[in-house]
Amino acid sequence: MKTIVILSGGMDSATLLYAVKSRGDAVKALSVDYGQRHVRELLAASRICEEAGVEHRVADLTALRPFMSGSSQTDDVPVPEGHYTEESMKATVVPNRNMLLLATAAAWAISSKFNCVAYGAHAGDHAIYPDCRESFIATMREAFLNCDWHPIKLEAPFTGMSKADIAKLGGQLGVPFALTYSCYAGREKHCGRCGTCVERREAFQLSGVPDPTAYEIENVPVSM
Amino acid sequence: MKTIVILSGGMDSATLLYAVKSRGDAVKALSVDYGQRHVRELLAASRICEEAGVEHRVADLTALRPFMSGSSQTDDVPVPEGHYTEESMKATVVPNRNMLLLATAAAWAISSKFNCVAYGAHAGDHAIYPDCRESFIATMREAFLNCDWHPIKLEAPFTGMSKADIAKLGGQLGVPFALTYSCYAGREKHCGRCGTCVERREAFQLSGVPDPTAYEIENVPVSM
Repeated sequence: MKTIVILSGGMDSATLLYAVKSRGDAVKALSVDYGQRHVRELLAASRICEEAGVEHRVADLTALRPFMSGSSQTDDVPVPEGHYTEESMKATVVPNRNMLLLATAAAWAISSKFNCVAYGAHAGDHAIYPDCRESFIATMREAFLNCDWHPIKLEAPFTGMSKADIAKLGGQLGVPFALTYSCYAGREKHCGRCGTCVERREAFQLSGVPDPTAYEIENVPVSM
Repeated sequence: MKTIVILSGGMDSATLLYAVKSRGDAVKALSVDYGQRHVRELLAASRICEEAGVEHRVADLTALRPFMSGSSQTDDVPVPEGHYTEESMKATVVPNRNMLLLATAAAWAISSKFNCVAYGAHAGDHAIYPDCRESFIATMREAFLNCDWHPIKLEAPFTGMSKADIAKLGGQLGVPFALTYSCYAGREKHCGRCGTCVERREAFQLSGVPDPTAYEIENVPVSM
C-alpha cells in the first residue's frame, strides 16, 4: 500500500505513522496548518518525520479561518483548563476541520498516485468532536472510494481504541514520544493543565509506557 | 432553509443561486480560488452576487496547489480546444477539487449556523469528472449529515439535468447570463473554442434562450 498518514504532531498520529511504516507501506506524512494558536505541533510533526525518515508536507489552510470561526484553537476564546468537560471540549472544535483535513489528504493521494490515507482519530474524541465519530468517518470512507477513478482507502484503525491503548502500541513500535507535542497552551514545555495534557499524562500512566514529557507542573493526580 | 450556494461564476451555479433565492431561502454564496489560471470567473461570481443582492465570499485554496497537481486549470498543461473528448476533459480535472469545495462550504455553513449547501454539478460533467458523479455526491451528502451535531443538507438539484435544461430554467428565473463566465482560456471575451465555450453555446442554442455571450469566434457549428 502507498499511504498518506495525517500527522498532527501528537502521540496518536505519531503512533499511526510508525504502525503504517512497520507494515512496509510507502509512506508520506501530511500536516495541516488551519490557523492553530501555535506552530509547535507542526514542528513536532516535522521532527517526527525526520526521525522516521518520511517525507513531510504542511498544507496551509489558514486562508480558510474566516470560514471556520468559533474555536479556541483558532480564535480568542480562552483555552479550557483541567480534564475536558463536554462544554470545554466543544470550545476547541474547529468547524469541519476533519473533512477539510481528509479532503486535502485525498487530493495529495490522488495527485501522488497513492491509494490509502491513514487517520488517527480515536475513541476518546468521538463523543464530543462530531467529525471524529465513527459514523462520520464511515461516510468519508465511502466518499474516498468515489472521489477519483481509483478508489482511495481511508483507514482509521484507532477509532475503537483508547489513548492508553495507543500509547501501549506506540511503546511497542518505538515511537519517539519525546518528540510529540499535545499541549493546547503552546509553550515550550507541556503545560500539564489543559485537557490534552491531562489526557496525555493519563494515557502514559494507564499504559505503563514511560512518559518522557517535560511538564510545567508535575504530580497532578490522574482522575480515573 | 439557510443555504450556502457554491458559485463558480458559470451559468449553472448562477442558475442555482437564482433558483434557491426564488424559493425564499436565506442565501450566501461561496466561490473557491484553487489557483485557477485566471480570476475572471471569480469576478463574474462577484458581479452576479451584486446583481442578486447576495453576500459573496471567496475561499483562498491556492496554498493547496502543491497537493493538487496535474490539471490544465492550475498547471502548465495546455488548455484543450474543441468539444471535449474524454482525454481532453481528464486534463482539466483538479484532484479532489469538489471534496475540498464541499468541505469548505460545509465549514462556512456550520460556523454561520446555516443548514444547507447547494451545489450545481450536472449530468454533463458526471461521466468524466469523478467527483461530479452522483455516486460521489451521494457519499458527500451522508458526510454532511454527520460532520456536525446539526445535519447539513447537501442539495445538487442539477445532477439529472443537461446544460440546456439548466439554461432553460435560468432563462425562466431571469438569471443575468451576460454576467456569467465559462471560458477556460480566460480572456475578456469567451474564446468560443474551448470545451466549456462549445458547451455553453450549445446549451443556449438547444434551450432556445438568447445567448448574450460575446465570443471571439462566432458561427461555430454545434455538433448535436
